[in-house]
Amino acid sequence: MSYKQAIIVRKDLGLGAGKTAAQVAHASVGAMKKAGERAADEWESEGSKKVVLKVDGIAELMELKKKAGERKLPVFLVRDAGLTQVEAGTVTCLGIGPAEEGRIDELTSGLKLL
Amino acid sequence: MSYKQAIIVRKDLGLGAGKTAAQVAHASVGAMKKAGERAADEWESEGSKKVVLKVDGIAELMELKKKAGERKLPVFLVRDAGLTQVEAGTVTCLGIGPAEEGRIDELTSGLKLL
Repeated sequence: MSYKQAIIVRKDLGLGAGKTAAQVAHASVGAMKKAGERAADEWESEGSKKVVLKVDGIAELMELKKKAGERKLPVFLVRDAGLTQVEAGTVTCLGIGPAEEGRIDELTSGLKLL
Repeated sequence: MSYKQAIIVRKDLGLGAGKTAAQVAHASVGAMKKAGERAADEWESEGSKKVVLKVDGIAELMELKKKAGERKLPVFLVRDAGLTQVEAGTVTCLGIGPAEEGRIDELTSGLKLL
């Protein structure tokens, strides 16, 4: 089986590259934990394939979270601690998977790469 | 104890934001695994504090890796699969920690945020 993880970032917050990268890393670790050890190990053994995508705002992000939840995909929503750049509690990104690539693509194939 | 992770990115490769974020996430997961479960759990319980920094090139990155290794800090070097933007095997970034914040700062306090 081919595993993949998608991380979807809110483009509208205008976060800098380093801040974005830290939030994406947070989402990646969080969603991986939700996926469970077997999926995580399989994913890593295949090279930890991941894709970083963007949405225009919170509404689109929450819709993806809902759909992923309905499909029983592992999801992890990142809320920033808010020490810099954004207010505390601001939702910045969403991690989905690792899960079987087709199941990730089904949800995310319409999104553009960050 | 206060734990922190540092991820150091090569600025000279000129990677895009999404590509950078994916590489940083890879470094974060990899270094966390090297740190062991106890340090990882403690770090996460404290909010997974991480900082994303930059260096000008490979020489500076490898020097940091060497120093981190000498100090027995958990390290993970990311080599890109090279499907886009860079040649296969290109070293893109380095994850250090999670480890006690002072030990991370000692190595990285001279570096600028990405």
